[in-house]
This record gives sequence, structure tokens and C-alpha cells, in this order.
Amino acid sequence: MVVGVDVGGTKMAGAVVARDSSVLASLNLHTPKEAEPLLDALADLVRRLCAASPEPVRAVGVGLPSTIDAGGMVLFSTNIDLHHVDAGAELRARIGLPVAIDNDGNLAAMAEHRLGAGRGSDAVVMLTIGTGIGGGVILDGRPMRGGSGTGAELGHMVVKADGPPCQWHCPNHGCLETMASGTAIARDGGAPAEEIVARATAGDAGAVATLERAGQYLGVGLASLANVLNPDVFVIGGGVMGGAGELLLGPARREYRSRALPPNATAPVVPATLGTGAGVLGAALLAADAVA
Amino acid sequence: MVVGVDVGGTKMAGAVVARDSSVLASLNLHTPKEAEPLLDALADLVRRLCAASPEPVRAVGVGLPSTIDAGGMVLFSTNIDLHHVDAGAELRARIGLPVAIDNDGNLAAMAEHRLGAGRGSDAVVMLTIGTGIGGGVILDGRPMRGGSGTGAELGHMVVKADGPPCQWHCPNHGCLETMASGTAIARDGGAPAEEIVARATAGDAGAVATLERAGQYLGVGLASLANVLNPDVFVIGGGVMGGAGELLLGPARREYRSRALPPNATAPVVPATLGTGAGVLGAALLAADAVA
Repeated sequence: MVVGVDVGGTKMAGAVVARDSSVLASLNLHTPKEAEPLLDALADLVRRLCAASPEPVRAVGVGLPSTIDAGGMVLFSTNIDLHHVDAGAELRARIGLPVAIDNDGNLAAMAEHRLGAGRGSDAVVMLTIGTGIGGGVILDGRPMRGGSGTGAELGHMVVKADGPPCQWHCPNHGCLETMASGTAIARDGGAPAEEIVARATAGDAGAVATLERAGQYLGVGLASLANVLNPDVFVIGGGVMGGAGELLLGPARREYRSRALPPNATAPVVPATLGTGAGVLGAALLAADAVA
Repeated sequence: MVVGVDVGGTKMAGAVVARDSSVLASLNLHTPKEAEPLLDALADLVRRLCAASPEPVRAVGVGLPSTIDAGGMVLFSTNIDLHHVDAGAELRARIGLPVAIDNDGNLAAMAEHRLGAGRGSDAVVMLTIGTGIGGGVILDGRPMRGGSGTGAELGHMVVKADGPPCQWHCPNHGCLETMASGTAIARDGGAPAEEIVARATAGDAGAVATLERAGQYLGVGLASLANVLNPDVFVIGGGVMGGAGELLLGPARREYRSRALPPNATAPVVPATLGTGAGVLGAALLAADAVA
């Protein structure tokens, strides 16, 4: 029995997960703004889940919207106030259980790889298209985190060198996130991304064209990733992707196939299947791996 | 004792290499245009090196300017006429020794990692700037070749989605090779790359600006690679780089540092130290690993 928690800017979603990845109990709490209250609330969420578990919980995994180094130090975060803090140690001190932490994109990729759309493949690249663009890479069946743990920031690969500036902690211009995220869709379409997606789904030609432009840039990113990482499959998830579906994926797939080197142009580009639960399941897998 | 061979479009360079990576004998032959004569000449080169070796040669490693899948099949090549051929098996049949083949970019990266500018680091990204741009990636101390062996094609990562078309087997537009290679420098500068480099070295402002533009795009590529792969060090080699040096690397470094996410912006960007011998040494390392 393990506990997996996915921390987002608005809520923290947690679950008690069994060895077969079945969810035995789940609970969501609001995410406090500041670091100490956030860590306290996270400990509280874990304690409540432990109390709801039919058997003792052996370990806790936590996914954070953060850049985390190989030593487990949270360097900085997007949407939450965790910066330069050893969040795993803080949580261990509060709850007295083994705690493993990882970037939420890495954990979603791990979950889709073992339980979702990437099952059966040892080389999976996952992108989550939401307000920003997150990513995770599985190579040889294991998360690829780079030399010191802060790689797989796939949303911050450049697709258009002279593109618009990125946001939060990214000093880049024209990276994938600035051209294909919910933020990019909203900028291009002149309305919130959810509204553009709803209009496009209803057949509005302008909204369809906005998603097509974002999808094309997504395809440029896929071509680059295919030439660098040569995955067996691309899995695309996240809230914007969930709504837009083929309106985004169709143009992305065409652009990708027209640009990648021939042997790298054949990987399927498929929607994620675990939805928003991927982060919690990935965190549970991380916890189970840590005590395996 | 092993033999390493680096096959280029003009010449095949080979050497007898001892366990301590010292070169005991070396020999270059002209590269025949067509596949069968090329494989025959390669076998001839290896036989002559074996005859020159003070001790029996145990294995042969060959670097090719080719995209090679995980099964050892050469899918296609640049500058030489090897396409859809199991070059390793062909050579084994000719010489009766164990033969291992790999992409020349991967082998140069392996050599710089173990013997050159990347020594002491387990996460090395290497780019070779010549007529085109080749690449190799070392992660966890081992070559990263992607899911089916055709990854690490770092020159074909997009840096400018609406950039000019690429060449040979690449259907892409605006990939790094189209913006920062010798071919790009020649297009931008209106003269062969070697001439632009010579003029820039002599202080010609226009030529310096041409190298600066190429260097900036190189830096865009480094930023993308840093965010995806998070290497400890970037090693830059190849003929154009060897001539241009800091005239190319200076602007590349500045652009990279200004764009990568802060924890990924700190990797040193250093010149390769093994020069054109990196390919032969990498091929020898591959051979030694194959019989280790």
C-alpha cells in the first residue's frame, strides 16, 4: 500500500494505491499559497489517506510542478510557492514515512508508460498541454531526467527562435510552450483556451484555425523530439489536449510526419488515457519503486 | 588490440588501437563512391591494419555517416552510398572478425566523453559543426541512441520553424543544420565556409557577423538540448568549429545562457579536444566494448 499525491496550483489530489495500481481511497485538498502551510497541508492529506487505508502505508510519492535536482532539492516551482526547499525531507520529518518526490511531468509519463497509452513501449515521450506545456521522457523503460535531474523540460525547447517571450521562470523566446500551450491558444484566439476549444468543437472556423496553428507548432516540437530521442510513441495529455483532441492532434501529427527524418517520423501520436489521474498514479508508482 | 575506422565521404581513416587508447598504426584510404567497392575497400583497410598490428586484432569498430537502427541495419547515409544494408554483417563476412558499427556522431561523443573534453562527466552532449551538423549524446555514461537506435540526430532539431529547407535525407525546415552548419555559413556569407572563417579570423566585420548569426542559432539549439537532456557539458567539434573557435562559440554560449531554464543554463560549452581523430578513437572504443 502506498500514497500518491499530485500537487497543482489549485488543488492537491491524493490516493491510497495498491500494488496492482487500484485506487482504494482518494482525497483532494485546496493548495495553500505559501510554502509552510502547503507542506503542512500536504502532510495532513497524507495522514488522512493513511488513516483511510485498509493496510499500513509503506511509502509516499509526491508529484510537484517543480524543477527538482538529482539530490531531491526543489529548485523552483510554477504556480506554487516552493523554491529552494528539500520538500521530501520536510514531508518525511512531518509524517515519518519514506517520501519520494519528482516533477509532475515525469510522473505522468511514468504512469502512461506503465498503465496507460504508452504501455508496451520502452521509449515514451509525453507532453501535457495545459496552461503551460510539461513533459516526461521514458527511455529503456526508465524516466530520463538528464545529467543532474532537471531535464525533460520539453515545453521549453525552442520551435521559433524569434517567437514571443515565455513566462514564469523561463527566460526563453519561442519555446514550445509559447506557441502551443493553452496560454498560446488564448493569445492567438483572443479568448480563454477553454472557450477557443469549445468554439472549435462547435465548428467555429476561426477557433479551428487557432487550434490548427498551435497543433502545427506542437508537430514541430514532436519532430525535434523524434530526431533527438527517437521514441516508440508520443503520448499527449493535459487539460487543453483533453478538450481539443484531434483538432490539435491532427495538425500536430501531419506537421511531425512532414519534418522528422524518415526513420523517426513513424511513431504513433496518441492521446493520454489516464486523464488527470496520471499524476497521482505516477506518484504512487514512484513510492512503490522507492520501497521495492 | 582493436581496429577503429571512421568512414567519411572522401576518406576512410583507420587505426590499430591498444587497450590504453594509444594508436599503434594508422592508415587512410580514399572512399569509393558505390556500396560494394566501399565495403571491399573497408575490408581491405582493416586487413592492412591487422597486418600492421603487433598483436592479433580482436574486434573492429566502424563509424559511418549513417542512420543505423538498433539491429545494426544502415537505413541511409549522407555522402556515401550505403542504404538499407547490414554493413556490419557484410564486413564480418569479408574479414572474419567481430564488427560493431555506429553512427559517427555517437562515436565522436563516446571518444570525447572517455578521452577528450567530456572526460569526468556522465552526461555529455556533443555537436560536430561541419558541412552538416552531427551529434551524439552520453547519458549515465552510455550512448543515448533512442528507442530504436536512430535518435541523437541533434542537427535536425528545429530552431526556426519557418527557416530554410534542409538537405540530403532531411525533409525539415529551419533545423539547426540549416541555420548553424558550414552550409548555413556559406549561404549566409556568400562564400565557402572555410573562406568565411578565414576572413573572420583576419578581422573582416561581415564575416564575423556571419559567424555570430550562426553561433546564435547554435546557442538556441544548445538551450533546447539543455532543457531536454540537461547535460553536464557541451562539447563542440567538427571542421568549421575547429577553424572558427570562439568566433562561433562565444555567441553560442551567450545565446544559450540567456535562453535555457536557470538550472539548465550553467553547463560549460567547450571545444572538442580530439579533433578529427575522435571518430577513429570512438570506433576503437566501440570495438573494445563489443569484446569486453
